[in-house]
Amino acid sequence: MAASATIQRTIYTGPFVHSLSLTELEICEKGAIGVDENGIIAFVEKELDLGAVQEKHSWQDATPVQLKGNAFFFPGFIDTHTHAPQHPNTGLFGKTTLLDWLQTYTFPMESSFTDLKRAETIYRNFVSRTLSHGTTTAAYYATIHVPATNLLADICLARGQRALVGRVCMNSDLSPDYYRDASVSQSVADSKASIDYIRSIDPKGSIVRPIVTPRFAPSCTSECLTSIAKLAKDESTFIQTHISENKGEIALVQELFPTSKSYTDVYDTHNLLTPQTILAHAVHLSAEERKTILARGATLSHCPCSNTAITSGCAPIRSLLDEGHTIGLGTDVSGGFHPSILENVRHAIWTSRHLALQSPLGDAAKLSTEEALFLATRGGAAVVGLADKVGGFDVGKEFDAQVVDLGSVSEGGENEGKFDAGPVDVFGWESWGEMVEKWVYAGDDRNTTAVWVRGRVVHRTARFEGRVVDGTATP
Amino acid sequence: MAASATIQRTIYTGPFVHSLSLTELEICEKGAIGVDENGIIAFVEKELDLGAVQEKHSWQDATPVQLKGNAFFFPGFIDTHTHAPQHPNTGLFGKTTLLDWLQTYTFPMESSFTDLKRAETIYRNFVSRTLSHGTTTAAYYATIHVPATNLLADICLARGQRALVGRVCMNSDLSPDYYRDASVSQSVADSKASIDYIRSIDPKGSIVRPIVTPRFAPSCTSECLTSIAKLAKDESTFIQTHISENKGEIALVQELFPTSKSYTDVYDTHNLLTPQTILAHAVHLSAEERKTILARGATLSHCPCSNTAITSGCAPIRSLLDEGHTIGLGTDVSGGFHPSILENVRHAIWTSRHLALQSPLGDAAKLSTEEALFLATRGGAAVVGLADKVGGFDVGKEFDAQVVDLGSVSEGGENEGKFDAGPVDVFGWESWGEMVEKWVYAGDDRNTTAVWVRGRVVHRTARFEGRVVDGTATP
Repeated sequence: MAASATIQRTIYTGPFVHSLSLTELEICEKGAIGVDENGIIAFVEKELDLGAVQEKHSWQDATPVQLKGNAFFFPGFIDTHTHAPQHPNTGLFGKTTLLDWLQTYTFPMESSFTDLKRAETIYRNFVSRTLSHGTTTAAYYATIHVPATNLLADICLARGQRALVGRVCMNSDLSPDYYRDASVSQSVADSKASIDYIRSIDPKGSIVRPIVTPRFAPSCTSECLTSIAKLAKDESTFIQTHISENKGEIALVQELFPTSKSYTDVYDTHNLLTPQTILAHAVHLSAEERKTILARGATLSHCPCSNTAITSGCAPIRSLLDEGHTIGLGTDVSGGFHPSILENVRHAIWTSRHLALQSPLGDAAKLSTEEALFLATRGGAAVVGLADKVGGFDVGKEFDAQVVDLGSVSEGGENEGKFDAGPVDVFGWESWGEMVEKWVYAGDDRNTTAVWVRGRVVHRTARFEGRVVDGTATP
Repeated sequence: MAASATIQRTIYTGPFVHSLSLTELEICEKGAIGVDENGIIAFVEKELDLGAVQEKHSWQDATPVQLKGNAFFFPGFIDTHTHAPQHPNTGLFGKTTLLDWLQTYTFPMESSFTDLKRAETIYRNFVSRTLSHGTTTAAYYATIHVPATNLLADICLARGQRALVGRVCMNSDLSPDYYRDASVSQSVADSKASIDYIRSIDPKGSIVRPIVTPRFAPSCTSECLTSIAKLAKDESTFIQTHISENKGEIALVQELFPTSKSYTDVYDTHNLLTPQTILAHAVHLSAEERKTILARGATLSHCPCSNTAITSGCAPIRSLLDEGHTIGLGTDVSGGFHPSILENVRHAIWTSRHLALQSPLGDAAKLSTEEALFLATRGGAAVVGLADKVGGFDVGKEFDAQVVDLGSVSEGGENEGKFDAGPVDVFGWESWGEMVEKWVYAGDDRNTTAVWVRGRVVHRTARFEGRVVDGTATP
């Protein structure tokens, strides 16, 4: 699929749900979203029947896609931090924490990506998986290998999933000798090679963009950090790295960079804190570090599944939001145990409840359903530099969306034990707001029956077909 | 299905996994479990081919059920604490905590179970749901209504799910006037009526048993607690109630029972702490309370999803185990947001990690995968008084089991985005131990393709059919 080919104009009718702000979730029960030849939202109507919409906009020739039943349109999820090559390790971590987890599980797996056939199997599977969970944009860490990194970009482009794809830079001896950059110059040259390749396959960056990816401070020498920051500046790319995930890691950074005031200061003094920098985790930042990050305009990726699974801590998201930080959610596979952003929406809420139990903030630490969904969509869009393009159903934005379709319980409750429609039971008396809550707290990929990026279908399940009046929206 | 009808002798061959002890999980890659006419495990072989097994035991006429692929047998889950009538509220709790949650969501829903048609829809759906998640035994709270409680027992018996079914006693003015027992005598009489009915439909208690269910101390007057304890003693039934879930609740108990030393003391002085008593939550118990519970032989139901969702706290399970408490897992729908015990296995582990972050115990607070699976099976069996009957694949136990079947990633990773086999990706190089971990951390009901209670199939998905050499094990 060429990223630039035009598509048929389409009118999506049915309920839609999206964030208006951090605290406001709009639930429109009778929506109509017009998507033009370029996949851009031309209009959003909230009360009219299809015929009236067609007439009002002179779109009689547009394809209608009309939802039925307990289904609604929701913006595609943005995964602001994940490691595609670690996908086969999902669920494997035992009782490790960050530093021994890296050595035990991560480096051995990533180093195997010299094998392109293996890389293809894993990357194709993972991109299919994340699409099936409604992830329309992902910021991917690949490995240190240029060919495999480029392959990941190829797969994202072919499947139509928006992606920032980063070759990982790591030249310090934290990494085993079989898996690290041979020198700073190789770090830079290989990163540049991957940037060039990704720009060659998608010159406008409509779907895939390169991102400079120093793994984290302990993986890079000071010279490497400086050089890679210069590369990002010269090439005008985004930057992604990890920060303040785990207390042992923070102590290690202090030991490796003894003249730095803090973990944040390491990145700041190496010119890595920019408005195009995505910092994953941010669990244990000091007040001063938070101020510095805010002042530089760098953004945060909150990875609650990962932070719980490998016992990193509870990032104080409620406080960070109050301070004005820009925050999205990240699955952080395979520190995180699930490729789904919806699972991380739930865990963002659970983590905030654990903070409410632990911290002096009490209930004020709690994230609401609305806030967590904002982080998963508009928050994430801002983190990856797409706030003007995706994250909500606004005129002028591109149509990155999913259909969320919930099952319904028949009279008598009998269904012969078949739950193909997913784990959520809707009895018929629920409000739309309650249906959204049920999806958030118990839904899964079975409820995501169709997914679009830029108006193009990128995932669709058999269940979707029977649920729309006209199921085919694109060529 | 009559609970006493005999079935065909069956040999289940394939890998099986079960707990040997709290810390040991046995993974037998080449198992054969012989189940006799009464659903009882006659033998367990760990190395022999089917033919050799048949010959050794002279079971040539037995039906073979041979697993293929990434599938294994696992004991059925035991849900030691759940509220069937609250199922339609699953996922609805907002930012409430226990006491306002009860008034906002729970009492209005439960009070509607005067409507038997509505009760039937909800109960049939919920029993189907829990079976589909591999729950072969559940300790259910019903409502105060005798007819609806009896109906729940009928449904469990008809579906073949082991259940303790309890009519809820609550006569204090904590409950709204439209939903409480009119008097102590009515509490006792209605509970007795339900006990009598349940014993009439399953005299031996092979599948369903009654359980005396004072909701929790604040819902019952002192006289009611004493009277209901006497009923349990007279009728030789189990008892279930809640304890020390939430700090506001604990303060309320102190206020309502000012002469009691503690929440535990309230139950103890009302004769409610027995070796047949199941206490749900136990989040904030003092050392003295823990000693009293241990001394009385009462057991604990840990409900981690619920404790996180309504911000009750983190029960110190690792410490309670060290002290010798008998502990199982409970979904506590709808304080808990999911009917699956597997989800609660994960959350037991997450909760223990949050305790590791908060408490002086540090990493010693962490539950392992093995420990959490023990709680879900043998631990739960002990809690509901079935330690000698279910929870593991031991000769003489009844065959309560599930098939866990994981998908496999094809060469090249392509699957056209179809993930009918569930959320877990197996690439082919994983050990069986790693496959079990993948299931624990990311599996769901799609992986539970068949479920047996006492050797009878109680749930089976279409996917199961194609995965066994001879898929039909029972009449």
